[in-house]
Amino acid sequence: MKRETLKNWQSVRKEVLNRIHSRQWKPGELIPNEADLAQEFGCARSTVNRALQNLADDGLLDRRRKAGTRVAMHPVRKATMSIPVIRNEIIARGSAYGYDLISSERSTPPPHVAALMGLAPRAGVIHIVCVHSADDTPYVIEDRWISSDWVSPDDMVNFANLSPNEWLVTHVPFTAGDIAFSAISAGAFEAALLGCELGAASFVIDRTTRNNERTITTVRLIFAPGYRIDTEI
Amino acid sequence: MKRETLKNWQSVRKEVLNRIHSRQWKPGELIPNEADLAQEFGCARSTVNRALQNLADDGLLDRRRKAGTRVAMHPVRKATMSIPVIRNEIIARGSAYGYDLISSERSTPPPHVAALMGLAPRAGVIHIVCVHSADDTPYVIEDRWISSDWVSPDDMVNFANLSPNEWLVTHVPFTAGDIAFSAISAGAFEAALLGCELGAASFVIDRTTRNNERTITTVRLIFAPGYRIDTEI
Repeated sequence: MKRETLKNWQSVRKEVLNRIHSRQWKPGELIPNEADLAQEFGCARSTVNRALQNLADDGLLDRRRKAGTRVAMHPVRKATMSIPVIRNEIIARGSAYGYDLISSERSTPPPHVAALMGLAPRAGVIHIVCVHSADDTPYVIEDRWISSDWVSPDDMVNFANLSPNEWLVTHVPFTAGDIAFSAISAGAFEAALLGCELGAASFVIDRTTRNNERTITTVRLIFAPGYRIDTEI
Repeated sequence: MKRETLKNWQSVRKEVLNRIHSRQWKPGELIPNEADLAQEFGCARSTVNRALQNLADDGLLDRRRKAGTRVAMHPVRKATMSIPVIRNEIIARGSAYGYDLISSERSTPPPHVAALMGLAPRAGVIHIVCVHSADDTPYVIEDRWISSDWVSPDDMVNFANLSPNEWLVTHVPFTAGDIAFSAISAGAFEAALLGCELGAASFVIDRTTRNNERTITTVRLIFAPGYRIDTEI
Protein backbone atom coordinates (compact mmCIF):
# COMPACT_ATOMS: atom_id res chain seq x y z
CA MET A 1 0.00 0.00 0.00
CA LYS A 2 1.36 3.37 -0.94
CA ARG A 3 1.30 5.79 1.97
CA GLU A 4 0.12 9.28 1.33
CA THR A 5 3.05 11.65 1.74
CA LEU A 6 2.83 14.77 3.90
CA LYS A 7 3.77 17.74 1.78
CA ASN A 8 4.29 20.55 4.26
CA TRP A 9 5.24 21.15 7.88
CA GLN A 10 1.66 21.99 8.86
CA SER A 11 0.43 18.54 7.81
CA VAL A 12 3.35 16.89 9.63
CA ARG A 13 2.48 18.95 12.72
CA LYS A 14 -1.13 17.82 12.49
CA GLU A 15 -0.18 14.15 12.21
CA VAL A 16 2.21 14.38 15.18
CA LEU A 17 -0.48 16.18 17.20
CA ASN A 18 -2.97 13.42 16.35
CA ARG A 19 -0.54 10.81 17.66
CA ILE A 20 -0.11 12.75 20.91
CA HIS A 21 -3.85 13.33 21.36
CA SER A 22 -4.74 9.72 20.54
CA ARG A 23 -2.05 8.57 23.04
CA GLN A 24 -0.31 6.53 20.31
CA TRP A 25 2.67 8.52 21.66
CA LYS A 26 2.21 8.86 25.41
CA PRO A 27 3.38 11.61 27.81
CA GLY A 28 7.09 11.19 28.54
CA GLU A 29 7.64 8.76 25.65
CA LEU A 30 10.57 9.19 23.23
CA ILE A 31 9.30 9.67 19.67
CA PRO A 32 11.12 8.43 16.52
CA ASN A 33 14.00 10.59 15.30
CA GLU A 34 13.62 13.14 12.51
CA ALA A 35 15.24 10.99 9.82
CA ASP A 36 12.86 8.09 10.52
CA LEU A 37 9.82 10.36 10.58
CA ALA A 38 10.92 12.03 7.34
CA GLN A 39 11.12 8.62 5.70
CA GLU A 40 7.74 7.52 7.09
CA PHE A 41 6.03 10.76 6.04
CA GLY A 42 7.83 10.95 2.67
CA CYS A 43 9.04 14.50 3.25
CA ALA A 44 12.29 16.38 3.87
CA ARG A 45 13.91 16.12 7.28
CA SER A 46 13.81 19.93 7.52
CA THR A 47 10.01 19.74 7.20
CA VAL A 48 9.83 17.34 10.15
CA ASN A 49 12.23 19.58 12.07
CA ARG A 50 10.05 22.63 11.58
CA ALA A 51 6.90 20.78 12.68
CA LEU A 52 8.54 19.34 15.81
CA GLN A 53 10.07 22.71 16.70
CA ASN A 54 6.67 24.34 16.40
CA LEU A 55 5.13 21.75 18.74
CA ALA A 56 8.04 22.21 21.16
CA ASP A 57 7.41 25.99 21.07
CA ASP A 58 3.79 25.21 21.96
CA GLY A 59 4.98 23.16 24.93
CA LEU A 60 3.73 19.80 23.65
CA LEU A 61 7.15 18.24 22.99
CA ASP A 62 10.38 18.38 24.99
CA ARG A 63 13.44 18.54 22.72
CA ARG A 64 16.89 17.84 24.11
CA ARG A 65 20.02 17.96 21.99
CA LYS A 66 21.35 14.36 21.78
CA ALA A 67 18.64 12.96 24.12
CA GLY A 68 15.98 13.21 21.41
CA THR A 69 12.37 14.38 21.48
CA ARG A 70 9.78 13.29 24.03
CA VAL A 71 6.08 13.98 24.44
CA ALA A 72 5.88 16.59 27.23
CA MET A 73 4.93 15.10 30.61
CA HIS A 74 3.33 18.32 31.75
CA PRO A 75 2.33 20.20 28.66
CA VAL A 76 2.59 23.93 29.23
CA ARG A 77 0.01 25.37 26.90
CA LYS A 78 0.53 28.86 25.59
CA ALA A 79 -1.94 31.62 24.94
CA THR A 80 -1.00 34.37 22.53
CA MET A 81 -2.55 37.70 23.18
CA SER A 82 -2.70 40.74 20.91
CA ILE A 83 -1.69 44.10 22.34
CA PRO A 84 -3.33 46.70 20.12
CA VAL A 85 -2.99 50.46 20.35
CA ILE A 86 -5.72 51.54 22.82
CA ARG A 87 -7.42 53.84 20.32
CA ASN A 88 -7.69 50.93 17.86
CA GLU A 89 -9.01 48.57 20.53
CA ILE A 90 -11.80 51.03 21.39
CA ILE A 91 -12.67 51.69 17.73
CA ALA A 92 -12.67 47.93 17.04
CA ARG A 93 -15.40 47.60 19.72
CA GLY A 94 -17.51 49.99 17.69
CA SER A 95 -17.18 52.83 20.24
CA ALA A 96 -16.21 56.47 19.78
CA TYR A 97 -12.69 57.12 21.03
CA GLY A 98 -11.91 59.95 23.43
CA TYR A 99 -8.68 61.13 25.05
CA ASP A 100 -8.03 63.40 28.06
CA LEU A 101 -4.60 64.47 29.20
CA ILE A 102 -4.67 64.76 33.00
CA SER A 103 -1.05 65.79 33.62
CA SER A 104 2.36 65.80 31.96
CA GLU A 105 5.58 66.87 33.61
CA ARG A 106 9.35 66.50 33.48
CA SER A 107 10.91 65.28 36.73
CA THR A 108 13.31 62.77 38.23
CA PRO A 109 12.04 59.20 38.73
CA PRO A 110 10.66 58.04 42.09
CA PRO A 111 12.67 55.04 43.36
CA HIS A 112 10.30 52.30 42.13
CA VAL A 113 10.25 53.81 38.62
CA ALA A 114 14.05 54.24 38.56
CA ALA A 115 14.38 50.56 39.53
CA LEU A 116 11.87 49.38 36.89
CA MET A 117 13.55 51.43 34.17
CA GLY A 118 17.16 50.91 35.28
CA LEU A 119 17.70 54.68 35.54
CA ALA A 120 19.96 56.75 37.80
CA PRO A 121 18.05 58.65 40.56
CA ARG A 122 18.82 61.97 38.83
CA ALA A 123 17.89 60.81 35.32
CA GLY A 124 15.30 62.83 33.40
CA VAL A 125 11.86 61.33 32.93
CA ILE A 126 8.50 62.47 31.61
CA HIS A 127 5.46 61.49 33.66
CA ILE A 128 2.15 61.48 31.83
CA VAL A 129 -1.30 60.57 33.14
CA CYS A 130 -4.20 60.40 30.71
CA VAL A 131 -7.57 58.71 30.31
CA HIS A 132 -8.82 56.93 27.19
CA SER A 133 -12.59 56.74 26.89
CA ALA A 134 -15.13 54.78 24.86
CA ASP A 135 -18.39 56.58 24.06
CA ASP A 136 -17.52 59.23 26.69
CA THR A 137 -17.11 56.58 29.41
CA PRO A 138 -13.65 56.17 30.97
CA TYR A 139 -12.06 53.00 29.57
CA VAL A 140 -8.52 52.96 30.90
CA ILE A 141 -6.04 55.16 32.77
CA GLU A 142 -2.59 55.34 31.15
CA ASP A 143 -0.05 56.22 33.88
CA ARG A 144 3.28 56.39 32.04
CA TRP A 145 6.93 57.27 32.58
CA ILE A 146 9.20 57.83 29.57
CA SER A 147 12.97 58.25 29.71
CA SER A 148 13.54 61.86 28.59
CA ASP A 149 16.21 60.68 26.12
CA TRP A 150 13.38 59.83 23.77
CA VAL A 151 11.22 62.95 24.08
CA SER A 152 12.03 66.46 22.81
CA PRO A 153 10.28 69.62 24.12
CA ASP A 154 8.30 69.71 20.84
CA ASP A 155 7.06 66.18 21.46
CA MET A 156 5.72 67.24 24.88
CA VAL A 157 3.33 69.63 23.17
CA ASN A 158 1.84 66.76 21.22
CA PHE A 159 0.56 64.93 24.27
CA ALA A 160 -2.29 67.43 24.62
CA ASN A 161 -3.94 65.79 21.61
CA LEU A 162 -2.19 62.46 21.10
CA SER A 163 -1.79 59.79 23.77
CA PRO A 164 1.77 58.71 24.60
CA ASN A 165 0.58 55.16 23.81
CA GLU A 166 -0.05 56.16 20.23
CA TRP A 167 2.86 58.60 19.95
CA LEU A 168 5.36 55.95 21.06
CA VAL A 169 4.10 53.37 18.55
CA THR A 170 4.80 55.70 15.66
CA HIS A 171 7.89 57.50 17.03
CA VAL A 172 9.93 55.18 19.24
CA PRO A 173 10.05 51.53 18.15
CA PHE A 174 10.71 49.00 20.87
CA THR A 175 12.50 45.70 20.44
CA ALA A 176 11.50 43.85 23.62
CA GLY A 177 9.60 44.24 26.85
CA ASP A 178 8.05 42.76 29.97
CA ILE A 179 4.33 42.64 30.56
CA ALA A 180 2.35 41.64 33.65
CA PHE A 181 -1.36 41.22 34.35
CA SER A 182 -2.93 41.64 37.76
CA ALA A 183 -5.95 43.04 39.63
CA ILE A 184 -6.10 45.98 42.03
CA SER A 185 -8.75 47.65 44.17
CA ALA A 186 -9.45 51.15 42.88
CA GLY A 187 -8.05 53.79 45.23
CA ALA A 188 -9.10 57.45 45.30
CA PHE A 189 -6.98 58.26 42.21
CA GLU A 190 -8.41 55.42 40.12
CA ALA A 191 -12.00 55.91 41.34
CA ALA A 192 -11.88 59.62 40.45
CA LEU A 193 -10.46 59.12 36.94
CA LEU A 194 -12.48 56.01 36.06
CA GLY A 195 -15.69 57.25 37.68
CA CYS A 196 -16.01 53.99 39.62
CA GLU A 197 -16.56 53.12 43.26
CA LEU A 198 -13.69 53.17 45.70
CA GLY A 199 -12.39 49.60 46.06
CA ALA A 200 -13.86 48.30 42.78
CA ALA A 201 -11.75 45.55 41.15
CA SER A 202 -9.72 46.84 38.18
CA PHE A 203 -7.74 44.81 35.68
CA VAL A 204 -4.17 46.10 35.38
CA ILE A 205 -1.46 45.74 32.74
CA ASP A 206 2.10 46.77 33.64
CA ARG A 207 4.43 47.03 30.67
CA THR A 208 8.07 48.07 30.37
CA THR A 209 9.63 48.29 26.92
CA ARG A 210 13.20 48.61 25.68
CA ASN A 211 14.97 49.55 22.49
CA ASN A 212 17.85 47.08 22.51
CA GLU A 213 19.20 47.42 26.07
CA ARG A 214 17.83 50.91 26.82
CA THR A 215 14.50 51.25 28.61
CA ILE A 216 12.10 53.54 26.78
CA THR A 217 9.06 53.57 29.00
CA THR A 218 7.11 51.89 31.76
CA VAL A 219 3.34 52.15 31.90
CA ARG A 220 0.52 51.03 34.17
CA LEU A 221 -2.81 50.66 32.40
CA ILE A 222 -5.72 50.54 34.86
CA PHE A 223 -8.93 49.43 33.20
CA ALA A 224 -12.45 50.36 34.29
CA PRO A 225 -14.15 47.58 36.32
CA GLY A 226 -15.67 44.89 34.08
CA TYR A 227 -12.82 44.90 31.54
CA ARG A 228 -11.91 41.49 30.15
CA ILE A 229 -9.31 40.26 27.64
CA ASP A 230 -10.36 37.33 25.45
CA THR A 231 -7.97 35.12 23.54
CA GLU A 232 -7.46 31.55 22.33
CA ILE A 233 -5.28 28.60 23.20
CA MET B 1 32.10 44.95 -2.79
CA LYS B 2 30.76 41.50 -2.07
CA ARG B 3 27.68 41.57 0.16
CA GLU B 4 27.49 39.06 2.93
CA THR B 5 24.70 36.62 2.24
CA LEU B 6 22.02 35.79 4.81
CA LYS B 7 21.98 32.06 5.32
CA ASN B 8 18.78 31.41 7.23
CA TRP B 9 15.33 32.86 7.81
CA GLN B 10 16.26 34.11 11.29
CA SER B 11 19.00 36.33 9.89
CA VAL B 12 16.65 37.60 7.16
CA ARG B 13 14.05 38.33 9.87
CA LYS B 14 16.63 40.28 11.87
CA GLU B 15 17.70 42.36 8.88
CA VAL B 16 14.09 43.19 7.99
CA LEU B 17 13.35 44.08 11.63
CA ASN B 18 16.40 46.40 11.64
CA ARG B 19 15.09 48.20 8.59
CA ILE B 20 11.68 48.65 10.25
CA HIS B 21 13.16 49.83 13.55
CA SER B 22 15.64 52.19 11.88
CA ARG B 23 12.73 53.60 9.79
CA GLN B 24 14.58 52.77 6.55
CA TRP B 25 11.20 51.14 5.82
CA LYS B 26 8.50 53.36 7.34
CA PRO B 27 5.03 52.46 8.70
CA GLY B 28 2.61 51.92 5.81
CA GLU B 29 5.40 51.68 3.21
CA LEU B 30 5.46 48.90 0.59
CA ILE B 31 8.62 46.82 0.94
CA PRO B 32 10.44 45.14 -2.01
CA ASN B 33 8.97 41.86 -3.24
CA GLU B 34 10.28 38.47 -2.14
CA ALA B 35 12.23 37.80 -5.34
CA ASP B 36 14.11 41.11 -5.09
CA LEU B 37 14.86 40.59 -1.40
CA ALA B 38 16.06 37.03 -2.06
CA GLN B 39 18.46 38.39 -4.68
CA GLU B 40 19.67 41.18 -2.41
CA PHE B 41 20.17 38.83 0.54
CA GLY B 42 21.65 36.03 -1.57
CA CYS B 43 19.21 33.42 -0.24
CA ALA B 44 16.27 31.34 -1.43
CA ARG B 45 12.93 33.04 -1.94
CA SER B 46 11.38 30.52 0.47
CA THR B 47 13.76 31.79 3.17
CA VAL B 48 12.55 35.36 2.63
CA ASN B 49 8.96 34.10 2.65
CA ARG B 50 9.38 32.39 5.98
CA ALA B 51 10.97 35.47 7.58
CA LEU B 52 8.28 37.83 6.28
CA GLN B 53 5.51 35.46 7.34
CA ASN B 54 6.97 35.29 10.82
CA LEU B 55 7.05 39.11 11.06
CA ALA B 56 3.47 39.24 9.75
CA ASP B 57 2.46 36.72 12.46
CA ASP B 58 4.06 39.08 14.98
CA GLY B 59 1.96 41.94 13.61
CA LEU B 60 4.86 43.98 12.22
CA LEU B 61 4.08 43.49 8.53
CA ASP B 62 0.77 43.49 6.65
CA ARG B 63 0.75 40.95 3.84
CA ARG B 64 -1.91 41.06 1.14
CA ARG B 65 -2.06 38.62 -1.71
CA LYS B 66 -1.31 40.59 -4.92
CA ALA B 67 -1.06 43.95 -3.07
CA GLY B 68 2.34 43.04 -1.61
CA THR B 69 3.81 43.50 1.86
CA ARG B 70 3.74 46.74 3.84
CA VAL B 71 5.20 47.77 7.17
CA ALA B 72 2.23 47.68 9.59
CA MET B 73 0.77 51.14 10.32
CA HIS B 74 -0.43 50.06 13.73
CA PRO B 75 1.71 47.17 14.83
CA VAL B 76 -0.27 44.81 17.05
CA ARG B 77 2.34 43.31 19.34
CA LYS B 78 1.71 39.90 20.80
CA ALA B 79 2.48 38.49 24.20
CA THR B 80 2.75 34.76 24.64
CA MET B 81 1.83 33.43 28.01
CA SER B 82 2.49 30.00 29.47
CA ILE B 83 -0.38 28.15 31.12
CA PRO B 84 1.21 25.60 33.44
CA VAL B 85 -0.56 22.98 35.53
CA ILE B 86 -1.35 24.78 38.84
CA ARG B 87 0.60 22.28 40.95
CA ASN B 88 3.69 22.89 38.78
CA GLU B 89 3.25 26.67 38.95
CA ILE B 90 3.22 26.53 42.77
CA ILE B 91 6.19 24.15 42.96
CA ALA B 92 8.13 26.35 40.50
CA ARG B 93 7.69 29.25 42.97
CA GLY B 94 9.48 27.14 45.55
CA SER B 95 6.33 26.61 47.64
CA ALA B 96 4.79 23.44 49.05
CA TYR B 97 1.70 22.42 47.10
CA GLY B 98 -1.61 21.64 48.82
CA TYR B 99 -5.01 20.61 47.49
CA ASP B 100 -8.47 20.64 49.12
CA LEU B 101 -11.58 19.31 47.46
CA ILE B 102 -14.52 21.46 48.59
CA SER B 103 -17.34 19.78 46.65
CA SER B 104 -17.94 17.47 43.71
CA GLU B 105 -21.33 16.52 42.32
CA ARG B 106 -23.12 15.29 39.24
CA SER B 107 -25.94 17.55 38.08
CA THR B 108 -27.43 19.31 35.08
CA PRO B 109 -25.81 22.56 33.95
CA PRO B 110 -27.14 25.95 35.06
CA PRO B 111 -28.07 28.05 32.00
CA HIS B 112 -24.84 30.09 31.81
CA VAL B 113 -22.74 26.90 31.96
CA ALA B 114 -24.90 25.14 29.34
CA ALA B 115 -24.44 28.16 27.07
CA LEU B 116 -20.65 28.31 27.58
CA MET B 117 -20.28 24.58 26.95
CA GLY B 118 -22.88 24.27 24.19
CA LEU B 119 -24.80 21.61 26.16
CA ALA B 120 -28.49 20.73 26.29
CA PRO B 121 -30.24 21.83 29.55
CA ARG B 122 -30.59 18.16 30.61
CA ALA B 123 -27.01 17.15 29.76
CA GLY B 124 -24.91 15.54 32.50
CA VAL B 125 -22.13 17.59 34.05
CA ILE B 126 -19.74 17.25 36.96
CA HIS B 127 -19.27 20.33 39.11
CA ILE B 128 -16.11 20.46 41.18
CA VAL B 129 -14.88 23.19 43.51
CA CYS B 130 -11.42 22.90 45.01
CA VAL B 131 -8.66 25.11 46.41
CA HIS B 132 -4.97 24.89 45.53
CA SER B 133 -2.64 26.25 48.18
CA ALA B 134 1.01 27.32 48.40
CA ASP B 135 2.72 26.81 51.77
CA ASP B 136 -0.73 26.26 53.37
CA THR B 137 -2.01 29.62 52.06
CA PRO B 138 -4.93 29.56 49.57
CA TYR B 139 -3.52 30.30 46.09
CA VAL B 140 -6.44 29.81 43.72
CA ILE B 141 -10.02 28.49 43.65
CA GLU B 142 -10.74 26.08 40.80
CA ASP B 143 -14.49 26.19 40.06
CA ARG B 144 -14.95 23.70 37.25
CA TRP B 145 -17.67 22.04 35.16
CA ILE B 146 -16.86 18.94 33.09
CA SER B 147 -19.16 17.32 30.57
CA SER B 148 -19.97 13.91 32.10
CA ASP B 149 -19.11 12.22 28.78
CA TRP B 150 -15.48 12.45 29.82
CA VAL B 151 -15.72 11.26 33.45
CA SER B 152 -16.50 7.73 34.70
CA PRO B 153 -17.72 7.02 38.28
CA ASP B 154 -14.22 5.70 39.05
CA ASP B 155 -12.69 8.98 37.95
CA MET B 156 -14.94 10.86 40.39
CA VAL B 157 -13.24 9.04 43.26
CA ASN B 158 -9.90 10.40 42.17
CA PHE B 159 -10.85 14.04 42.72
CA ALA B 160 -10.48 13.59 46.48
CA ASN B 161 -6.71 13.49 46.01
CA LEU B 162 -6.02 14.82 42.52
CA SER B 163 -7.27 18.16 41.20
CA PRO B 164 -9.41 18.09 38.06
CA ASN B 165 -6.85 20.51 36.57
CA GLU B 166 -4.16 17.86 36.80
CA TRP B 167 -6.44 14.89 36.06
CA LEU B 168 -7.66 16.47 32.82
CA VAL B 169 -4.13 17.21 31.58
CA THR B 170 -3.18 13.55 31.81
CA HIS B 171 -6.54 11.97 30.91
CA VAL B 172 -8.44 14.18 28.47
CA PRO B 173 -6.33 15.99 25.88
CA PHE B 174 -7.80 19.17 24.47
CA THR B 175 -7.24 20.51 20.99
CA ALA B 176 -8.39 24.13 21.36
CA GLY B 177 -9.94 26.55 23.77
CA ASP B 178 -10.90 30.07 24.76
CA ILE B 179 -9.29 31.92 27.60
CA ALA B 180 -10.16 35.25 29.21
CA PHE B 181 -8.52 37.37 31.90
CA SER B 182 -10.39 39.77 34.15
CA ALA B 183 -10.69 41.09 37.71
CA ILE B 184 -13.53 40.57 40.20
CA SER B 185 -14.30 41.74 43.73
CA ALA B 186 -14.28 38.78 46.11
CA GLY B 187 -17.81 37.88 47.26
CA ALA B 188 -18.64 35.77 50.31
CA PHE B 189 -17.77 32.51 48.49
CA GLU B 190 -14.35 33.73 47.32
CA ALA B 191 -13.52 35.48 50.61
CA ALA B 192 -14.29 32.32 52.60
CA LEU B 193 -12.24 29.99 50.40
CA LEU B 194 -9.31 32.35 49.79
CA GLY B 195 -9.27 33.71 53.34
CA CYS B 196 -9.31 37.28 52.02
CA GLU B 197 -11.43 40.33 52.75
CA LEU B 198 -14.86 40.71 51.21
CA GLY B 199 -14.49 42.92 48.12
CA ALA B 200 -10.74 42.33 47.65
CA ALA B 201 -9.64 42.44 43.98
CA SER B 202 -8.99 38.97 42.55
CA PHE B 203 -7.41 38.10 39.24
CA VAL B 204 -9.61 35.68 37.27
CA ILE B 205 -8.96 33.29 34.39
CA ASP B 206 -11.95 31.78 32.56
CA ARG B 207 -11.07 28.92 30.27
CA THR B 208 -13.20 26.63 28.10
CA THR B 209 -11.52 23.78 26.25
CA ARG B 210 -12.63 21.45 23.49
CA ASN B 211 -11.55 18.18 21.99
CA ASN B 212 -12.20 18.82 18.31
CA GLU B 213 -15.75 20.26 18.36
CA ARG B 214 -16.88 18.81 21.70
CA THR B 215 -16.53 20.93 24.81
CA ILE B 216 -14.71 19.11 27.60
CA THR B 217 -14.76 21.60 30.43
CA THR B 218 -15.15 25.20 31.51
CA VAL B 219 -13.31 26.53 34.54
CA ARG B 220 -13.08 29.76 36.49
CA LEU B 221 -9.80 30.18 38.36
CA ILE B 222 -10.04 32.86 41.05
CA PHE B 223 -6.63 33.82 42.40
CA ALA B 224 -5.88 35.16 45.87
CA PRO B 225 -5.46 38.98 45.91
CA GLY B 226 -1.95 40.04 44.85
CA TYR B 227 -1.57 37.40 42.13
CA ARG B 228 0.26 38.57 39.03
CA ILE B 229 1.20 36.90 35.73
CA ASP B 230 4.51 37.97 34.20
CA THR B 231 5.48 37.43 30.59
CA GLU B 232 7.46 38.96 27.72
CA ILE B 233 6.75 40.72 24.46
